[in-house]
Amino acid sequence: MSRRKFIKNIAGASAALTTGALASPAHAARKRFVWKLVTTWPPNFPIFQEGVKRFAKEIKQISDGRLTIQVFAGGQLIPPLQTFDAVSQGTVQMGHGAAYYWAGKVPAAQFFTAVPFGMNAQGMNAWFYYGGGLELWREVYKPFGLTPFPMGNTGVQMGGWFRKKIEKISDLKGLKMRIPGLGGKVMAKAGVNPVLMAGGEIYTALERGTIDATEWVGPYHDLRLGLYRAAKYYYYPGWHEPGPTLELIINSKAWASLPRDLQLIVKTSATASNLLMLSEFEAKNLEALRTLETRYKVKTREFPAEVIKTLHQYTKITLDEIAAKDKLFSKVYNAYEQFRTSNDAWNSISEAAYARARKL
Amino acid sequence: MSRRKFIKNIAGASAALTTGALASPAHAARKRFVWKLVTTWPPNFPIFQEGVKRFAKEIKQISDGRLTIQVFAGGQLIPPLQTFDAVSQGTVQMGHGAAYYWAGKVPAAQFFTAVPFGMNAQGMNAWFYYGGGLELWREVYKPFGLTPFPMGNTGVQMGGWFRKKIEKISDLKGLKMRIPGLGGKVMAKAGVNPVLMAGGEIYTALERGTIDATEWVGPYHDLRLGLYRAAKYYYYPGWHEPGPTLELIINSKAWASLPRDLQLIVKTSATASNLLMLSEFEAKNLEALRTLETRYKVKTREFPAEVIKTLHQYTKITLDEIAAKDKLFSKVYNAYEQFRTSNDAWNSISEAAYARARKL
Repeated sequence: MSRRKFIKNIAGASAALTTGALASPAHAARKRFVWKLVTTWPPNFPIFQEGVKRFAKEIKQISDGRLTIQVFAGGQLIPPLQTFDAVSQGTVQMGHGAAYYWAGKVPAAQFFTAVPFGMNAQGMNAWFYYGGGLELWREVYKPFGLTPFPMGNTGVQMGGWFRKKIEKISDLKGLKMRIPGLGGKVMAKAGVNPVLMAGGEIYTALERGTIDATEWVGPYHDLRLGLYRAAKYYYYPGWHEPGPTLELIINSKAWASLPRDLQLIVKTSATASNLLMLSEFEAKNLEALRTLETRYKVKTREFPAEVIKTLHQYTKITLDEIAAKDKLFSKVYNAYEQFRTSNDAWNSISEAAYARARKL
Repeated sequence: MSRRKFIKNIAGASAALTTGALASPAHAARKRFVWKLVTTWPPNFPIFQEGVKRFAKEIKQISDGRLTIQVFAGGQLIPPLQTFDAVSQGTVQMGHGAAYYWAGKVPAAQFFTAVPFGMNAQGMNAWFYYGGGLELWREVYKPFGLTPFPMGNTGVQMGGWFRKKIEKISDLKGLKMRIPGLGGKVMAKAGVNPVLMAGGEIYTALERGTIDATEWVGPYHDLRLGLYRAAKYYYYPGWHEPGPTLELIINSKAWASLPRDLQLIVKTSATASNLLMLSEFEAKNLEALRTLETRYKVKTREFPAEVIKTLHQYTKITLDEIAAKDKLFSKVYNAYEQFRTSNDAWNSISEAAYARARKL
């Protein structure tokens, strides 16, 4: 370790150990920080990128200008999928995206976004804040010099747009579908050919029949992309992404260099943004659903029970296969499953039972 | 208006209009505020009172000691149910409780906590932050000089503990049950004799048969009260309180006197606390449910469909009766119902459909 690095680490550690802002040395408390935050989102991407910009603006105001965060959309400073590396290496101090984008580097990261048939937003937040989830996430990101926070959640997504009707599991066979991540791996077991494709290319590919199906986000974002003009069958629920958590990642050395009160401002604002983004998704999705149904005569369809049951079995096989090859994945999988099982038991007599009761 | 009052209001208005902390006059930005917050909760009441204490501590740290909030539990400074008046009159600057406690003063307030068969936590938050709910709430509290914020949510509660089995709606007839608010009014239509009773008295009353049934909160708080020793039948779901929002209320003149950056700190911390409290309820409830089931052999039971359907009909009658007599209630009821209807449509293909899919 170089002398410079050593001094930096010591300084970082002592800032992190300070128990309250009042105890911070005056010079550190008044120091001004100008940070860069890169995201994996297109410029002006509603809710996602817009939510990050609001977060940065708020922190500047709350900190009285002591922490200024300059926000860059994917590609403006670095390519979107280099966000993790750029923050890890300290090229920039912060990033916003989703942990499952980094599955290639660290498969265990996927549990911190969403796994098929896993927990919804409410379950994920309970796990992160009071069930040990965030501690595990920090452990998984530690070797990369990254400190993660949950910041945003899309809620349950839609199952996707299909150019033909899905009546049984064999109807999926041979379909080319834009579906990333674990959802794509599970679909592959049903004979789907999962393809990766950036948001901007999806509409044309679907409209021209280059792909037969696509998932995107939910009614609000799907409506904006015009997908209802390119495919007729709109399926629910989004079994593959039942409440994806978005992430704020911070370079751990940069984080340690912040005085304790600025750390708390970032942490609290990220928590508030976590709820605000989810609430915005909910409110905009319910409006967009009405527009799709009334103005564009879109009829939503439920995946048949056989299809869902089979995809659920394939999910378990897929997760078990990865766990057999990856110790860290297996560790997080076990912790996740333990919390999820209890959460399911509680959910089945609270939220799920209540949802049933209202429909009687 | 006195000259002093006028100057104070002008100062408040200009602070509120300031667009950023950097634009605040330096003297206002460095002024120190010491505020009192009274709650409706018992001292050390887990999650509720503890969450408020964490909120106050965090604000002190974030604001570098510029805003100190002294927290008092119900009865420590003033009786719990005088919280609304004390904050309204400016005796103290802040309060924490639940809007439906003030139904006697302003019936419309009930929609900002929970109404039977109404929205769950996720729906309430979407309504507050992005569906016009919070604007309506401010309008309803304006005549009282109060500025409200959502701050905490219990999630779906349990239906309650009964000393006898409920198999049909007529089994409720003649029961004495501790159930406050609209839930009690609805139960009364089924022949229940609803009684009010402070938390500390419930166990003994139920154990001695002074009451036949009680609702309280959820598994975590119910376990702590030992209710499983006093009644055998533990029913779900909590149709009467499907995601009660807790409230932070601030005296509007005190609020206007805060510089913009301190206002933002309070607002952001309240939003973060809103999510943290809900997450804590979820995590602690799922643990407590396991304890109740495994250690104390409690068997949870679902209210029969006929009971739920009838209570749902009685709920509509109850709300319509109040709306017919109270214009403001009617206004909020209409806005709430409009949002709820769209939220239900979205929920039925997102959260509810996903909950079903996982159980297949």
